[in-house]
Amino acid sequence: MPTAEKRGPDWHNDDGEELFVHQDSDHLVASEAGSAPLHTFDRASSAAKRVLFGRNLSSAEEGEQRLSKRLALPIFSSDAISSSAYASEEILLALVGAGAAVLMYGPLVALAIGLLLGLIAISYRQVCYGFPNGGGAYAVASSTLGTVPALIAASSLIVDYVLTAAVSVAAGVAAITSALPELVPLRLEIALVALLLIVIANLRGIRESGKIFALPAYLFVGGALLVIGVGLVRIVTGDPAITWSADLHPELTEASQVLLPLLLLRAFAHGSVALTGTEAISNGVASFKKPEAKNAATTLIFMAVLLGTLFVGISLLAFAYGRAPIEGGETLLSQVARASLGDGPLYAFFQIATTGILLLAANTGFNGGPQLARILAADGFLPRQVGQRSGRLAFGSGIGLIAIFAGVLLVATGALVTDLVPAYAIGVFIGFTISQAGMVMHWRRQRDSGWRGRALLNGVGAVVTFVVLVVITAAKFADGGYLVFIAIPILTVFMLIVRERYRLHTRELSIEQGRVFEGLHRNRRIFAPFGEINRSTVRAVNVGRLLAGSNGELIALRVVFDEAEEAAIRDRFETHFPDVRLVTILSPYRAILEPVIHYLDEVEEELDEDGRKLMSVVMVPEYSGRHWWDRILHNGNGKRLREALIGRANTVVLDIPYRRHIPD
Amino acid sequence: MPTAEKRGPDWHNDDGEELFVHQDSDHLVASEAGSAPLHTFDRASSAAKRVLFGRNLSSAEEGEQRLSKRLALPIFSSDAISSSAYASEEILLALVGAGAAVLMYGPLVALAIGLLLGLIAISYRQVCYGFPNGGGAYAVASSTLGTVPALIAASSLIVDYVLTAAVSVAAGVAAITSALPELVPLRLEIALVALLLIVIANLRGIRESGKIFALPAYLFVGGALLVIGVGLVRIVTGDPAITWSADLHPELTEASQVLLPLLLLRAFAHGSVALTGTEAISNGVASFKKPEAKNAATTLIFMAVLLGTLFVGISLLAFAYGRAPIEGGETLLSQVARASLGDGPLYAFFQIATTGILLLAANTGFNGGPQLARILAADGFLPRQVGQRSGRLAFGSGIGLIAIFAGVLLVATGALVTDLVPAYAIGVFIGFTISQAGMVMHWRRQRDSGWRGRALLNGVGAVVTFVVLVVITAAKFADGGYLVFIAIPILTVFMLIVRERYRLHTRELSIEQGRVFEGLHRNRRIFAPFGEINRSTVRAVNVGRLLAGSNGELIALRVVFDEAEEAAIRDRFETHFPDVRLVTILSPYRAILEPVIHYLDEVEEELDEDGRKLMSVVMVPEYSGRHWWDRILHNGNGKRLREALIGRANTVVLDIPYRRHIPD
Repeated sequence: MPTAEKRGPDWHNDDGEELFVHQDSDHLVASEAGSAPLHTFDRASSAAKRVLFGRNLSSAEEGEQRLSKRLALPIFSSDAISSSAYASEEILLALVGAGAAVLMYGPLVALAIGLLLGLIAISYRQVCYGFPNGGGAYAVASSTLGTVPALIAASSLIVDYVLTAAVSVAAGVAAITSALPELVPLRLEIALVALLLIVIANLRGIRESGKIFALPAYLFVGGALLVIGVGLVRIVTGDPAITWSADLHPELTEASQVLLPLLLLRAFAHGSVALTGTEAISNGVASFKKPEAKNAATTLIFMAVLLGTLFVGISLLAFAYGRAPIEGGETLLSQVARASLGDGPLYAFFQIATTGILLLAANTGFNGGPQLARILAADGFLPRQVGQRSGRLAFGSGIGLIAIFAGVLLVATGALVTDLVPAYAIGVFIGFTISQAGMVMHWRRQRDSGWRGRALLNGVGAVVTFVVLVVITAAKFADGGYLVFIAIPILTVFMLIVRERYRLHTRELSIEQGRVFEGLHRNRRIFAPFGEINRSTVRAVNVGRLLAGSNGELIALRVVFDEAEEAAIRDRFETHFPDVRLVTILSPYRAILEPVIHYLDEVEEELDEDGRKLMSVVMVPEYSGRHWWDRILHNGNGKRLREALIGRANTVVLDIPYRRHIPD
Repeated sequence: MPTAEKRGPDWHNDDGEELFVHQDSDHLVASEAGSAPLHTFDRASSAAKRVLFGRNLSSAEEGEQRLSKRLALPIFSSDAISSSAYASEEILLALVGAGAAVLMYGPLVALAIGLLLGLIAISYRQVCYGFPNGGGAYAVASSTLGTVPALIAASSLIVDYVLTAAVSVAAGVAAITSALPELVPLRLEIALVALLLIVIANLRGIRESGKIFALPAYLFVGGALLVIGVGLVRIVTGDPAITWSADLHPELTEASQVLLPLLLLRAFAHGSVALTGTEAISNGVASFKKPEAKNAATTLIFMAVLLGTLFVGISLLAFAYGRAPIEGGETLLSQVARASLGDGPLYAFFQIATTGILLLAANTGFNGGPQLARILAADGFLPRQVGQRSGRLAFGSGIGLIAIFAGVLLVATGALVTDLVPAYAIGVFIGFTISQAGMVMHWRRQRDSGWRGRALLNGVGAVVTFVVLVVITAAKFADGGYLVFIAIPILTVFMLIVRERYRLHTRELSIEQGRVFEGLHRNRRIFAPFGEINRSTVRAVNVGRLLAGSNGELIALRVVFDEAEEAAIRDRFETHFPDVRLVTILSPYRAILEPVIHYLDEVEEELDEDGRKLMSVVMVPEYSGRHWWDRILHNGNGKRLREALIGRANTVVLDIPYRRHIPD
């Protein structure tokens, strides 16, 4: 072992790697080796990450690695584009109950949503320019609208992450069961297994990576464009597969005619789920190559055109092929794809690509959640650990929480996309509205040339998305939409409370600017209460001797239940520590904590020669086993003593955790 | 405030009560006032207890307060006697399926069980003499049969405590719904509320108290004797309410004749639930007035006669009145009582007394559980906290666990007594068998005059209870009985593991007998890693200065992420602590913990002039908020640092919890 040869620090590890750039004895800079995880498991997973994603980057290097538009598109757009796999079906599901005749309005509703998509994309294009460091709804709102709207936006995003995971998994499973109908009865089971796999991948540290994301995303887009292209050619050539001409002007029933406006609003509300994920690119502007804003804006528009084409195209073809949605059965997209591509390998391949992009979309929920949580933690709205690079526990519990809620939603709805969509759309449009409203404020504040035009555009965006939000809410409140209006206030209030606590603690801990703290001049008494006489007690006594120094006194303290115990303990203690004073308290009422506290209370009344109270240092020895199950077996009295003493005047509490050193 | 006038310790509290008998400065004896709880809530509940149960007793006084037989009977027997409220019904339920004719065997089965009761009572009478300090199955087995049988006995007792609670609550609710049939649909709800009330009463500190227990117990016994007496008079006078003569020799169906032996065994297995609780008196011998063993033995025999009379009497009358059990409907006891007492207030009163004694019986589960847990903890089979007088948390969680399991059983069975009985009877007979087998060993070891007779008696008891155990298990294994055979091994293994861990820890912590520990002579370096500069950091630095003394060095340690942060922190730190050395570690890879550990690793390589490594003391400041929710917001890095350092060679870790003192 090289270690044995070491003579004094050489600032290198056993492999000869430099741990620190040792500028001088008081200024060190940690190298990558000096920042490497300490434990084997962490080290192994860190090595695996390095292979997959390249080596760690120091803060200084980080700016150098940016995304091209070609890679950014699949990374940021799988969530948005994948919604074309189920949005058309949602429109028709809202219409189908009123008779087949109403289905002809499906493509029109899709077109209206396509126009809305255009408006939202143009609005978000402006977010890219206005917030080049990343303009999530939370970031925009917190810099323009204030804390509460920002937290509402953040809460709606958290709700959306859960629903993205649930909806995308459900839709992905529907793509599988469309190709293999015999799996329909196992839908929920497959969905939960898929969710579990995504969770495991995330806990193991998978990250958004262009190469992994690009393939299924481009395969899906290519496949869908092929499906649409074949269909369009058939429409133009008057292929017999196109059945729409026959049904072009069917009679609407009277009831349908009266209810038509309402039906169309409902269909619009359902279909607006196509717009979820549109904001993702504007969140990630900072990851683009320079010029960031321009590249992001271009990618965003490209994404919107693509999504619009797929969504409107699929809706049109469904109508042209005369297909209607089958609740819980084959998906509409699968029917359309089968009609265009036939039943062969091309179709199977397309279903695989569809499943792939949907599972990647589900993954964005697990990626975005912790990222947002880190930003919220940095702003003091979530526990600080969440924001620490190494807060693996917090990260894991975040992933776990998203998974649990998504799993509950899947179980509650039987993994049916259409039951999950209402809440999803509502959550997304809350974010849209707040974000656009914030942008209006942003431009008003900037007042640079052309600000009025930009403010107007975002203003229109805010109003339109708000109107859509009201429509969706009205249409879907009772169908699960209300859950969003319960979850968001709870999350918002929770985050406000966290910040309030942090502020309180900061006030409590703050010290006067510039005050010089000298050493403790007061005389002191060091108390070492103990239970058994063991290694942990030896350590406490030794530390106590150091603390007592030359002008303090060390007093070991033991509660005994009878005279015999007193004699035995005193005898043993005085053998081991002949120079230490031992005070015993006989406790015939079998109380342990109370007599110790009363004793300290009394002893503290004693004053030193200057008439001041003496300071007490109470050391609480603690057996700190290797595992939590070892620890809960001990330290009951120590913990209670510590709790009773923390916050007392003139008392310093010291925990002395002990575990025996086992040499490697 | 008297406090202000205090000049030095006077060993009295503010009310002038003496806190300690102050023998000399190193030997104190805590008075009752000096043992009084510290917190207002505890103080209030302790005061309430004093009003209800009299003042606390010191260990010396405890022997003086003992129970008379008249009070001991209801305290220790409500569990056993209350089983007469449902045991007769259980016998008939096992028979009723085979046709009304078989019911005539009911009284005979009851008589057989009554004889078994006599045998068990006589066996347990001997336990009273053999184990005058309390002869629970665990105590007997651990002193005679060894650890594993003792733990199996203890586990069966724990299972029984849960089932006592569940069965008694269910039976109590059945008594209510018999009088008020409109409440039948709410049976489970009422049962859960009753369970909750018992839990609350126990958490608030209710204890077994003769006066509380005596009333419903004696009322029930008196009422039941009246019911039986009226019935016997009617039998003697040939009252027309007596229908048995008509059915005395009905024809058994052929199938019933073949199956009769099996049916009777099943009925016997069901009815043996009447014997649950018989052992309670032998557990509590130490609480009786002198001569303890004799008084307990007398009480036990009296209890057995009473229980036998009630149980056989009720079984006989049910047959005489021609009543059969109605599953989930009116209880058999209620039918019999109605037949004897009519439908008037006397009947209503009796139902109330029945409910009362059953709820008190349910309470014995909550009383016995923590008591047994305390004994097991003292023997090292459960976490030590459980055994501490003040382990309120552990006590509460014990109560809570019993309640949760009892609640789950109630929900799973819909609060139906008959579904709960199989497991209950199995658990009880496991305890009986182990206990009797242990008594045989006990007498063999004693070998005093007449030991053979006693050993034979307990031996017969052991064999008979074992045979009954086999019968019950065979009859009821599939009906929930198997749960007992899952629960007992789990509990037993858990307790063995706990003891193994304690043994391991004791070995790890043990120190050489007689070794003298002198102070630390090695040179030392004191490290104070910190995050923010606040009051908590000031405390750590001050303690560090004391520890460094004249021959140690104090080094404050801070990880920074960039140069600007470094400059700002250094500037501020040096203003506050001009004489303390600050080492900063710039961490461009944003690791916090790892560079600190690597730094300590390196620095530790330095040797002092004697060629020995220096000792490191690392102080971890900790913000210790008043509530757990304040604490989880802090200390993420501190905890991880502490974890990484505990158990290192040459390193002492000190936690320095800080909370600002708020004067009253």
